[in-house]
Amino acid sequence: MSAKIPRSQENDYTSEIITERQHFLEEKSGASLNHTKQFSFDPETMEGNCEQLFGVAQVPIGVAGPLLVNGEHAQGEFYVPMATIEGTLIASYNRGMRVIRESGGVTTTVMSEAMQRAPVFFFKDARDAREFCHWLVDSIDVIRAQAESTTSVGKLLEIEQYPVHNMVYTRFDYSTGDAAGQNMTGGATFVACEWIRANYPKLRTYGLSGGMDTEKKTSFVNSLKGRGRKVTAEITIPRQVLADVLRTTPENLRNSTGINTLAAFLTGASNNAAHPANGLAALYMATGQDMANIGEANQCSVYSYVTKTGDLYYSITLPALIMATYGGGTGLATQRECLELMDCYGQDKAYKLIEIAAGLVVAGELSLVSAARTDKATGTNEWVDAHEKLGRNR
Amino acid sequence: MSAKIPRSQENDYTSEIITERQHFLEEKSGASLNHTKQFSFDPETMEGNCEQLFGVAQVPIGVAGPLLVNGEHAQGEFYVPMATIEGTLIASYNRGMRVIRESGGVTTTVMSEAMQRAPVFFFKDARDAREFCHWLVDSIDVIRAQAESTTSVGKLLEIEQYPVHNMVYTRFDYSTGDAAGQNMTGGATFVACEWIRANYPKLRTYGLSGGMDTEKKTSFVNSLKGRGRKVTAEITIPRQVLADVLRTTPENLRNSTGINTLAAFLTGASNNAAHPANGLAALYMATGQDMANIGEANQCSVYSYVTKTGDLYYSITLPALIMATYGGGTGLATQRECLELMDCYGQDKAYKLIEIAAGLVVAGELSLVSAARTDKATGTNEWVDAHEKLGRNR
Amino acid sequence: MSAKIPRSQENDYTSEIITERQHFLEEKSGASLNHTKQFSFDPETMEGNCEQLFGVAQVPIGVAGPLLVNGEHAQGEFYVPMATIEGTLIASYNRGMRVIRESGGVTTTVMSEAMQRAPVFFFKDARDAREFCHWLVDSIDVIRAQAESTTSVGKLLEIEQYPVHNMVYTRFDYSTGDAAGQNMTGGATFVACEWIRANYPKLRTYGLSGGMDTEKKTSFVNSLKGRGRKVTAEITIPRQVLADVLRTTPENLRNSTGINTLAAFLTGASNNAAHPANGLAALYMATGQDMANIGEANQCSVYSYVTKTGDLYYSITLPALIMATYGGGTGLATQRECLELMDCYGQDKAYKLIEIAAGLVVAGELSLVSAARTDKATGTNEWVDAHEKLGRNR
Amino acid sequence: MSAKIPRSQENDYTSEIITERQHFLEEKSGASLNHTKQFSFDPETMEGNCEQLFGVAQVPIGVAGPLLVNGEHAQGEFYVPMATIEGTLIASYNRGMRVIRESGGVTTTVMSEAMQRAPVFFFKDARDAREFCHWLVDSIDVIRAQAESTTSVGKLLEIEQYPVHNMVYTRFDYSTGDAAGQNMTGGATFVACEWIRANYPKLRTYGLSGGMDTEKKTSFVNSLKGRGRKVTAEITIPRQVLADVLRTTPENLRNSTGINTLAAFLTGASNNAAHPANGLAALYMATGQDMANIGEANQCSVYSYVTKTGDLYYSITLPALIMATYGGGTGLATQRECLELMDCYGQDKAYKLIEIAAGLVVAGELSLVSAARTDKATGTNEWVDAHEKLGRNR
Repeated sequence: MSAKIPRSQENDYTSEIITERQHFLEEKSGASLNHTKQFSFDPETMEGNCEQLFGVAQVPIGVAGPLLVNGEHAQGEFYVPMATIEGTLIASYNRGMRVIRESGGVTTTVMSEAMQRAPVFFFKDARDAREFCHWLVDSIDVIRAQAESTTSVGKLLEIEQYPVHNMVYTRFDYSTGDAAGQNMTGGATFVACEWIRANYPKLRTYGLSGGMDTEKKTSFVNSLKGRGRKVTAEITIPRQVLADVLRTTPENLRNSTGINTLAAFLTGASNNAAHPANGLAALYMATGQDMANIGEANQCSVYSYVTKTGDLYYSITLPALIMATYGGGTGLATQRECLELMDCYGQDKAYKLIEIAAGLVVAGELSLVSAARTDKATGTNEWVDAHEKLGRNR
Repeated sequence: MSAKIPRSQENDYTSEIITERQHFLEEKSGASLNHTKQFSFDPETMEGNCEQLFGVAQVPIGVAGPLLVNGEHAQGEFYVPMATIEGTLIASYNRGMRVIRESGGVTTTVMSEAMQRAPVFFFKDARDAREFCHWLVDSIDVIRAQAESTTSVGKLLEIEQYPVHNMVYTRFDYSTGDAAGQNMTGGATFVACEWIRANYPKLRTYGLSGGMDTEKKTSFVNSLKGRGRKVTAEITIPRQVLADVLRTTPENLRNSTGINTLAAFLTGASNNAAHPANGLAALYMATGQDMANIGEANQCSVYSYVTKTGDLYYSITLPALIMATYGGGTGLATQRECLELMDCYGQDKAYKLIEIAAGLVVAGELSLVSAARTDKATGTNEWVDAHEKLGRNR
Repeated sequence: MSAKIPRSQENDYTSEIITERQHFLEEKSGASLNHTKQFSFDPETMEGNCEQLFGVAQVPIGVAGPLLVNGEHAQGEFYVPMATIEGTLIASYNRGMRVIRESGGVTTTVMSEAMQRAPVFFFKDARDAREFCHWLVDSIDVIRAQAESTTSVGKLLEIEQYPVHNMVYTRFDYSTGDAAGQNMTGGATFVACEWIRANYPKLRTYGLSGGMDTEKKTSFVNSLKGRGRKVTAEITIPRQVLADVLRTTPENLRNSTGINTLAAFLTGASNNAAHPANGLAALYMATGQDMANIGEANQCSVYSYVTKTGDLYYSITLPALIMATYGGGTGLATQRECLELMDCYGQDKAYKLIEIAAGLVVAGELSLVSAARTDKATGTNEWVDAHEKLGRNR
Repeated sequence: MSAKIPRSQENDYTSEIITERQHFLEEKSGASLNHTKQFSFDPETMEGNCEQLFGVAQVPIGVAGPLLVNGEHAQGEFYVPMATIEGTLIASYNRGMRVIRESGGVTTTVMSEAMQRAPVFFFKDARDAREFCHWLVDSIDVIRAQAESTTSVGKLLEIEQYPVHNMVYTRFDYSTGDAAGQNMTGGATFVACEWIRANYPKLRTYGLSGGMDTEKKTSFVNSLKGRGRKVTAEITIPRQVLADVLRTTPENLRNSTGINTLAAFLTGASNNAAHPANGLAALYMATGQDMANIGEANQCSVYSYVTKTGDLYYSITLPALIMATYGGGTGLATQRECLELMDCYGQDKAYKLIEIAAGLVVAGELSLVSAARTDKATGTNEWVDAHEKLGRNR
């Protein structure tokens, strides 16, 4: 008979029940939770974020910067908090930020926005499915009204349709304000689907999640249509800056991008960059984002060329950058403080945070792509050396 | 002129310099770091994990369980620490664990192991590239000796070859013991490559990272060949358990898998599961794993069928599950404690942790796939309701 | 110095110049063109189809059928001409047609239609690219007028936009009547693009083919958005028919589909069927279609389940079925006759031909999926035996 | 009641039964088969290639060339027969061949060879599957002996293993001499599998085709591991030749490749070239290849860069080029003659033909990539003009 984890039906966030759970776990495992017990936040504030709470993960945060962003929402220099346990990571991003500053900043543009829920609708046959596709187009206004009745923020932008066999996969695309919006759009789409079921007799049944949102996973539909915010970060780096800071040339970086793109094409990889997940994970963790979104947010495309003046144009488009400045974990104790370090907490800040994140990714790429090169003269490799010097994984 | 982040050349982990950085950031931003300052660990222990340290991300940890695992390395019941800020997540995994317990446990099998570095070698033409492929095969013993000279743990298992045009993309596959091994394999491969450069005159040049490791990103080469540990978690769930705990049937779950697999096939998604990234991210964060690996670890394949006795066979294979029990962030204060809760800290524990992680993913899938279904009688959807009740993103 | 192939500036399709070329080739190679010389068509009719004509490929045509189609355009029984050199192929399709007849026919539905040209537009930066996206939406009427000015048949349905970096990949989607439409849409899009260049000063340059039409190649964008006609063919096969004709069960075929779908998902294959390319290639060759389109037309998705009555629902969706009944090679001597065998030559017949083709694919799948199974009792495999008996490749 | 197609049990290839089928079809359809009846070959020779024969598809053949190939098997100038109905196609390839000649020829290299059958093996659980993987490695010699007992030509090179869940997908890789080998490998693998079934008691069952051969479809496993012959064709084109013949520059072509590669990466396309399927289909049809293989043979990768001397390095790797010079349709009347035009009929010619095919693809790419560019000065586009002038699809 399994021992049950202690729970309180009344209030599961009191010190008493938390202590009881800690004792239970210590007893079961023989381990001591000396540090895991030491959180500075009020456990009651964790209701809605974490069930069966017993402690805290303490992840060190370093700062990189300043990151000079020429965004539409983020403008100026930002000191970026990065929660990470990977030695050399912050140092590397820091160096990339120097390249950015010396190049006059990274320019960021939110291209589009759409958070999805993706119900699938089932019919008797393909003709009924096709007819439903037309009806969906004709009924968009009333479906939108149903969906939006559940939220003061979410707006239904479009219903993508992918009919196949006797079913119609869809993606309900929403704008979601400063929230990431996965839950908001879940509720809205559910109400819309229930209305559809009540009003479209030929519908046999539906599934609220048919899988084409490809939530928390990469996919070509996300790459093409976007998810969350689709953002581009661009920079033109003077040849001299590349030489001085990264000891490389525009041609070398352009060629590296080409080789990586070919590898990504041949393997069906979800990005042709070096390590966007590293910087994103560190910023996500510091600012209370849903870490599981790293599963999709790191999908991206890199593109570069040598300009007519001999400098390097370098650009990254992230089609599925999902981040919030409100709701979720953003209001928790340390997470909110880290957002405030960049003046990114609360209403009307999501685009700003997105732009900083995109700029951060560029910093990491510039630094690593260059570091990965080996110095033929000395037979040394900067990336290897850095990990020997700063890292821990020997 | 940008203000520079305070640093100490001598020792950048003293209280003084950390305090100086905190003041600098507070002054720059106007924010107060009341909570972010409060870490219980000794900052000196963060050398090798986090540069320009100024504080701590406090992420709440809850516990789910017990998870009954019939592994080769993990055997018995485990209380799984999950660091998360996503309401309902732990409750959902907890419910899945009940299904697993009532089904007699989840069976886990590490299928294979290989951590990669993926240099690309350049030649004059395709014939030289082809000749190099043959030479690589013939020279594997001496190359292995070179690579392994840098590490007491890593073993070079194989060099995968993917010649194309006038180059040869490779993947150097290593076993890495209890470490995740990205850095260990980086150093080993660098030494091997330098030896190759010195001994293969027709080589024009090489890049230490040609992109085919597809590190921290999903890809079909990872799906096919594996990266880190490839692990399968299987369970046969009695029909009655599905009915009692999840109010569904084997046929329903089998059909859901089919619909999701079709969606994944049509969109080129990196997994056909519901949300493996959620549980993995929570376990990764609690136990000091590299969070950026979520970018590849969530790639997986789900498969299910109804058995001859009318029960449900359900299986998940994760081809790129990268986790460590030693090195990296595993030894940090709270992270180590969480590993110890499962007796997974230190030497010879990596396979055990991998098996628990794979079982955890199964728990999450079973719970969510079932919750996503809508009750036609009441017109309610459990997933939506759960997020309304337990969640925060309204 | 290379010997030049004889050509006539005046008329390159006379018997004289053709004979001259034949002699030239015979002399150069020492080969005799006894059969290649023997065509029954008037060579002058080949102007517009084949330059530097010197002979004919004679490909045998067999007939399979009747294929019973319950389409919206194709209704009734069709005897399908198949030009092929692959032994067993027609016999196999023939058997599948028997299954279809005994099941009451295959139901076909053209889901949507769109032939693409896919220009890419280049800008200074991502903001200019984004602005262009909005302008494209606002300017659709005038762009449509420009495009349609070049053709009496083609209609511009939509301009899909995929902005990335400082460029905008597009797909101009057209309906094209009874022609396949690749050339028609090329001319129309060129005129539209030239108008855009003249009227959108911020445009730096554009490429008429940016690659996102993925013409004559498979892709996920074709799978999702369709190309040419997207058509579904469905059938419900009584359990008894499967037993009698194919000696299998609904469950077996459903499971086979599942295993193949998993393989397709894991490998990123362009279809999860057995061999759609076989039947399509034979029908394409007989009816004067562009054979290179096999490179994309064989992309498809198979889906099946066991119905409540214990029968098999089986469906194939082909998202990029490109076929013509007018223009191209459809009017040539034997090609037109083969189209006429199915009353599919000329105006208003394209949808009918598409439906027959989709039904044909179903016939081939049913036959082969079943044949690939091995009889455990006798240790024989029907597919292997058939190729030993009917085939040639021992 | 359906009318049955006339057949003869005794000999289905006599003039009588063929005439009977022609009358039957003419009567059923009202069409006249004036041309389709006129074949010059002896119908008896079609046994093994085409069942229920009733006529011939006459496809015009033109010639392009000479194509200058610097292969290991194909050396010198070749006049390439192309069977096509697509106007401008031969003219376009012809122009590309001029570029090749003026650049000193295209260099071709067969990188590797492997034709597959891909059985899947089913087990009780993942551990049994893993154990089977090890057994397969240990038993390769005896399995090879079994497989090779069925063929005098085929050699079993390797068994690729892809274990997942409780099964093991495999690819049995063979060399197949001058045949394409799909049937030869089918028989060999069947015998090997039956031996495995008899000798491996833990095997529950197997499927002869598990889908991972991805036959006649594109996939990432083919892209990575190859299928049939994997061949690279390379050329270095002097800057002046590009200027003179194609009115373009190395930089322009390199950039075009980059834009197309990005599109292919973003859409998951099966190639990043312009139109390899066009030339391949025309050569396949002329020389008696299995046309359905166009479904996989057109998968390829293009790569180019500007050399230090300012010229263009241009390369195509085709990983799944499946062609035969013996067996199948290669011995038929016109098909054999066309092979003989290039001295490619019969034994020991397959690699030669493969090399010519690869060179042909390069010719087509060079011509079209350049033609697709628009002349800004005149506002004309060569590709559009060519189709207006030479084509038929207005």
